[in-house]
Amino acid sequence: MDKRPIGIFDSGLGGLTCVKEVLSLMPCEDVIYFGDTGRVPYGSKGRDTIVKYTRQNIKFLRRFDVKYIIIACGTASSAALPMIEKDYDTEIEGVVKPASDEAVAATKNKKIAVLGTAGTVRSGKYAEVIAGADKSISVLQKACPMFVPLVENGYTSGKITEEIAREYLEPVIEFGADTIILGCTHYPILEKVISGIVGESVTLINSGAAAARHTKKRLAELNMLGDEKKRGSVRYFVSDMVEGFAELGGMFLEREIGGSIEYIDIDGVV
Amino acid sequence: MDKRPIGIFDSGLGGLTCVKEVLSLMPCEDVIYFGDTGRVPYGSKGRDTIVKYTRQNIKFLRRFDVKYIIIACGTASSAALPMIEKDYDTEIEGVVKPASDEAVAATKNKKIAVLGTAGTVRSGKYAEVIAGADKSISVLQKACPMFVPLVENGYTSGKITEEIAREYLEPVIEFGADTIILGCTHYPILEKVISGIVGESVTLINSGAAAARHTKKRLAELNMLGDEKKRGSVRYFVSDMVEGFAELGGMFLEREIGGSIEYIDIDGVV
Repeated sequence: MDKRPIGIFDSGLGGLTCVKEVLSLMPCEDVIYFGDTGRVPYGSKGRDTIVKYTRQNIKFLRRFDVKYIIIACGTASSAALPMIEKDYDTEIEGVVKPASDEAVAATKNKKIAVLGTAGTVRSGKYAEVIAGADKSISVLQKACPMFVPLVENGYTSGKITEEIAREYLEPVIEFGADTIILGCTHYPILEKVISGIVGESVTLINSGAAAARHTKKRLAELNMLGDEKKRGSVRYFVSDMVEGFAELGGMFLEREIGGSIEYIDIDGVV
Repeated sequence: MDKRPIGIFDSGLGGLTCVKEVLSLMPCEDVIYFGDTGRVPYGSKGRDTIVKYTRQNIKFLRRFDVKYIIIACGTASSAALPMIEKDYDTEIEGVVKPASDEAVAATKNKKIAVLGTAGTVRSGKYAEVIAGADKSISVLQKACPMFVPLVENGYTSGKITEEIAREYLEPVIEFGADTIILGCTHYPILEKVISGIVGESVTLINSGAAAARHTKKRLAELNMLGDEKKRGSVRYFVSDMVEGFAELGGMFLEREIGGSIEYIDIDGVV
């Protein structure tokens, strides 16, 4: 048994789709969440910048003596995690490996599409991990840079969102993928729109939820699950205004944000 | 005569629409430009965060002994400048006053619309400045949060952009403004789309260009214009990757970025 909290970070709000699954699968665990809302988004930024922010975020979470860190951000998982994971004694997992594993298990026609930010697609990490698991699988990566601003501005359904999604998904349909990884933790909010376009027979993999499932398995293997007799708590930290996070966060969590929300000057973490 | 450079900053690339006008009006001036591409956008963020970033950006520009600072960012001009302008001995001007002055001079039916980011609209600064100049003018402020991501992802024309613009401009048309302030320095890139919807009889005020015109006038008043016999140079600094800035910057500048582009760790400026 390990009573220490699980640390989770994202560039902003998307990681809450992972928190939602963590709370549901492991209600006894304490969680420290950091949303880097003051520097969001990561997806359009360069690798060096993402690596720098990722290091600061990890440093901040480690202040809470976390037992495990989930990078609930597709971009940081793809572009930064491979560069830094060996530098910490805390186990750190992103969304790429867990989501890829689930996709490899799900595909029947051996065609997987990965939707992600520009940074995620540029890193090529999903394609690499899937090829490492099964070389016979073809992978199509598609950058969907408008999905994050659409979601963050409340365009979660409707004509405009459908048109942009149709544009992004056209090559995916042509490619014939039977499995699509939602490689950015914002994208599950658009699940219905995406499913409506590609058809319900296509399996959508929620990368944040996959990371939560992987974390439970891994903590059990390591005998590091928390005290099952108590109910865990969540502390949220953000690098921009607390109000905005409280307002929009509920959309991702599909319930009100129950825990405390505090501001942290993340640049000051050095 | 004052040979020191003019400092200009923006949250990212939008401020280049101001640089373009500075280079055209004052080709003899040296310019130091900082684009905070590592933390872009500002428009969706809270006031305290914008004030903090603005102070860091000013501190950075002052390292170059600048004679004048232009905040070529609608959000920082509205939400941060009023809180901090008294703290520096360098003269600092944003885009709000210059653009408002031009709009007040241009309107005939006394109806001005202001398009801006969520942060700009929330600050109410444009409405306040226009009311201060002429109380008989009615002002409609309209937040257009999707315009910046559209521009930064290359959607500068086409069906999707037109549909979003139509949605934002519907209340503006209903209001009957004869003058529209493009209150964010990204928006001139969408000038044709906007003009196509509201009609060519409506005057569009380019806030970055207005700030450049104001600067020339102000420097002349202060006898602080540069050496007219030489040709000025521009040094660009960014807080994210240099490549991305070089690629997209030309779209804003309407020519290739001629000066040097250097990375600066802006968090480290304290």
